[in-house]
Amino acid sequence: MKNVFILKEKKCELFFEKIREKDGIFVCTIATTKTAQIPGISAAGATPELRKYTAQADVEYLFYGKTFTIKEIPKNPLGPPSPVIITKAAIDLMKLPVFIINAGCETKPFVPSIVLRGRGLKCITTGEAFKDGGNELVEKSKVLADELLKLDRFIILGESVPGGTTTALSLLSFLGIDSFGKVSSSMSDNAHDLKEEVVKLAHKNAKLSKELIKKNPVKIVESIGDSMQLVNAVLAIFISKKNPVILAGGTQMIAVAAFIEVLEDFLNVKANWDNIAIATTRWVAYDERADFIGLANSIKKLKFVFACDLNFSNSVLEGLKGYEKGLVKEGVGAGGVVTVGFIKGQFSHKKILNNIEHLFAKMCE
Amino acid sequence: MKNVFILKEKKCELFFEKIREKDGIFVCTIATTKTAQIPGISAAGATPELRKYTAQADVEYLFYGKTFTIKEIPKNPLGPPSPVIITKAAIDLMKLPVFIINAGCETKPFVPSIVLRGRGLKCITTGEAFKDGGNELVEKSKVLADELLKLDRFIILGESVPGGTTTALSLLSFLGIDSFGKVSSSMSDNAHDLKEEVVKLAHKNAKLSKELIKKNPVKIVESIGDSMQLVNAVLAIFISKKNPVILAGGTQMIAVAAFIEVLEDFLNVKANWDNIAIATTRWVAYDERADFIGLANSIKKLKFVFACDLNFSNSVLEGLKGYEKGLVKEGVGAGGVVTVGFIKGQFSHKKILNNIEHLFAKMCE
Repeated sequence: MKNVFILKEKKCELFFEKIREKDGIFVCTIATTKTAQIPGISAAGATPELRKYTAQADVEYLFYGKTFTIKEIPKNPLGPPSPVIITKAAIDLMKLPVFIINAGCETKPFVPSIVLRGRGLKCITTGEAFKDGGNELVEKSKVLADELLKLDRFIILGESVPGGTTTALSLLSFLGIDSFGKVSSSMSDNAHDLKEEVVKLAHKNAKLSKELIKKNPVKIVESIGDSMQLVNAVLAIFISKKNPVILAGGTQMIAVAAFIEVLEDFLNVKANWDNIAIATTRWVAYDERADFIGLANSIKKLKFVFACDLNFSNSVLEGLKGYEKGLVKEGVGAGGVVTVGFIKGQFSHKKILNNIEHLFAKMCE
Repeated sequence: MKNVFILKEKKCELFFEKIREKDGIFVCTIATTKTAQIPGISAAGATPELRKYTAQADVEYLFYGKTFTIKEIPKNPLGPPSPVIITKAAIDLMKLPVFIINAGCETKPFVPSIVLRGRGLKCITTGEAFKDGGNELVEKSKVLADELLKLDRFIILGESVPGGTTTALSLLSFLGIDSFGKVSSSMSDNAHDLKEEVVKLAHKNAKLSKELIKKNPVKIVESIGDSMQLVNAVLAIFISKKNPVILAGGTQMIAVAAFIEVLEDFLNVKANWDNIAIATTRWVAYDERADFIGLANSIKKLKFVFACDLNFSNSVLEGLKGYEKGLVKEGVGAGGVVTVGFIKGQFSHKKILNNIEHLFAKMCE
């Protein structure tokens, strides 16, 4: 497959065929967690203060081509822009319908979003990230999945949750997956030690029994994960029963896939793993300071893992080259949306790069 | 057309053809206004207190087949159930995807809804129903219309706004349409005098110049109308440019159509009136204590006006017969959804009646 790396099970032609035959929808689940306020934990937004508004500004840009909550689209402190410009460039070319799910933002985004939770999440070190809000999210996500299914389209499920690789690490490691030092990051040097420290404190304060993995996994994400993980896992389970679901993201989507495995038993509903893929960027897939492929291999039921070969090395815009230096890497479903665009042959590498450059240049005017 | 009354322009075969060829979506815009708290003004909910929750309970029932905000689905004080059971019966048969737009509810519904406004509306007698919130609703409705358009389906636009015929009268009469004594009601005896008194007080307190009709019509609904009127009008204008829109309701949708006419000039965007219809129930269309057809004729650009010939006279359930005595009549898009089901041949009268009876019987268990 041109421009797409196939990173796990090779027999994915049938999956590709389904994607080619159907129309899609991009669903982006956003949330804010105070975990992102810990200095040095994330670069999804230049400062801890600005990271409060990264998710909101991302989806505002997606809809309007400009932001309302803050003045400009989120930037990495070292310059490169939020991956939302990649997502928007692809979506504009693909004419993909976009629906935003608000799974809990402290400040409301200025977009028409499907609200499942009205408040932001606490820091996971409290051990009660969104205490007692889990079952409500499960119920609402189930009925939302029913309506999305009636549209009979494949779904690309993305996220914008600053601090989300830390909550991913927290969930993955609690579920017994060897993940310390393996999750990706919006920073080139990652912050593995800090993330590990935060996660261990979260687990200590939450005082959760490992029995919850079987008995009540919802309680686990409520305590030491994030609401995006829960919402996207429920949507993926129910939608996969009939239509393909592309979990669009890096190690955060590995956490979602891991959680699907435990949620299947708890909800007594089987996901259809022939309809589930993770798709991310080359920058995450081959991130030397993380182990995306290793983590993907640890999720036994997960069959399809892809990365798009999007490359900014020859970009005319210096700011974009930061992605080649290990900055930003992924987010707002960028990798998954571009992968699907390549699978469906909706644009060439040259075309999508041009569109991204055009949006970035316009933004810098 | 079997089971459908054609009430205006007779050359509607092309419109019917478009509806038959495409798939649809049902979009229901809800809001609460303190106008509904005025004793005697509405029977959409048995008491003023319960009417605070009618819209929320309606859409909860639509998704879950049960309610959360209050114990049971809204009832007319004299017994018959909310029209949502008609809507749900039809939607289940048609497998129609449902999206709820929350245009402002004081209490949040327990459903995944697209939130455009976070607070409920004041009583129109304050002259500032949702002061200064209008332009935000216009912007958000525009981008939402863009995404709905990408789904390439026709849209049935319904509402649940208790007190909404009073806010409709308020808007219609301000726009210069002879409407006093002509709007419909969930009560058999209507409450024309009370509605007129409320509307005149609203107009007096709002102190609006008639120049606003040309200069800033958004200010008019903000002051003496309701947010559903604005949201549905904007959606209809933009969606009609490519796809059919069925305004699903009675005299409340006449107000929306009237508002589309003035909004077209203000936004400098032309609606495509060949793609816009109003569809309601027989109970509204031939309501002797209102003048739905007269009002429809007063909207010059509006071409297509339909009513479904749904009849509960021979129902085995006494509660439903209240509809034949002039109670409830319409709401939650019931008339429009059933009309579309008849146009597309998705059910017979016998089948839809059976389904409604089944839901109502289950509810009464």
